[in-house]
Amino acid sequence: MRILIIGANGTIGKKLTPHLSKKHEIITAGRNSGDIRVDITSEESITEMYKQIQNIDACICIAASGPLDNFSELTESQLLQDFKGKLFGQVNLVLLGQKYLNDNGTFTLTSGVFADIPYKGVTAGGMISGALHSFVLSASIELPRRQRINVVSPSMIEDSVKEFGHLFPGLKAVSMNELIEAYEKTIEQNISGQILKVY
Amino acid sequence: MRILIIGANGTIGKKLTPHLSKKHEIITAGRNSGDIRVDITSEESITEMYKQIQNIDACICIAASGPLDNFSELTESQLLQDFKGKLFGQVNLVLLGQKYLNDNGTFTLTSGVFADIPYKGVTAGGMISGALHSFVLSASIELPRRQRINVVSPSMIEDSVKEFGHLFPGLKAVSMNELIEAYEKTIEQNISGQILKVY
Repeated sequence: MRILIIGANGTIGKKLTPHLSKKHEIITAGRNSGDIRVDITSEESITEMYKQIQNIDACICIAASGPLDNFSELTESQLLQDFKGKLFGQVNLVLLGQKYLNDNGTFTLTSGVFADIPYKGVTAGGMISGALHSFVLSASIELPRRQRINVVSPSMIEDSVKEFGHLFPGLKAVSMNELIEAYEKTIEQNISGQILKVY
Repeated sequence: MRILIIGANGTIGKKLTPHLSKKHEIITAGRNSGDIRVDITSEESITEMYKQIQNIDACICIAASGPLDNFSELTESQLLQDFKGKLFGQVNLVLLGQKYLNDNGTFTLTSGVFADIPYKGVTAGGMISGALHSFVLSASIELPRRQRINVVSPSMIEDSVKEFGHLFPGLKAVSMNELIEAYEKTIEQNISGQILKVY
């Protein structure tokens, strides 16, 4: 398969990309690195990317995690800013990409554990992930030409415990291997509309 | 208790308001009717409302349902417009209201079944409800002064089957009584962070 990976240079992408490249042709895209430059906060940039890359069987987006927020001072405008990349960026990859992806093509998005398990300071992250889960359910019955869509919802990764573990006491970290298996499953298995909770 | 009901004049509100008024003092607010006028798409209007009404123990929002959408032509700007009232309106009632609600006060929001059960044409509605569910989880651990928050997620109401039933084949309608019990539970019982799925 010809797989487009957005965010190939992040914590997960750096491990997933070489793994998938053993069996598949990989095209990487990112804001500052990759075969193609894309800013997923821009609909024009996403459309431009799809026009440049022809014949794509899979689009995997491994978006960056959101910033921490302070609930007592949180505002709509802060939420909208946080929604821009991780929520609307990923949604736009699908809404705009449905016209470009091959028949039977598949989208894989990335949400996160805070949709289901609340921690202080991650209200925006939780809302983004909750919205993505429901979006994927909807999109799975709407997408044309037998296209599929799934979302991987990671907990904190073992590789990030040193940096973020103190913020999320009691949150079980998952291994990079488990996470890579989940992404791979969305590519290899004929599933759609699934929320793969890796926690 | 002194209960503020926003949307008291809607399908659910018209039944819930007289029911709760048997045991509680009710203040109604709405765009075009009610004791107080409020436009929940405006942060200024919400703040003005809370300043006018003092000493509130509960805020119940029964927001209108969203419009239908066409997935093949859906855009970020359409989604943002749909998010404005039902998502950000309700979120702002909490973010702004946390300063005004009494100690031990309680918020009750309204989402909907499409968060979990997808139907064609309701992608925005599903995303809004999914985001609200995760927001309520987060808010329940963030709110100050032992304030509580819950969300009622209704399926189609029996009263609406004639108008909307043909759009959602197989979707079980719920009785108005079941729904009123769910809202009442969020007021009377000492629960928080719950998604009351009435379906």
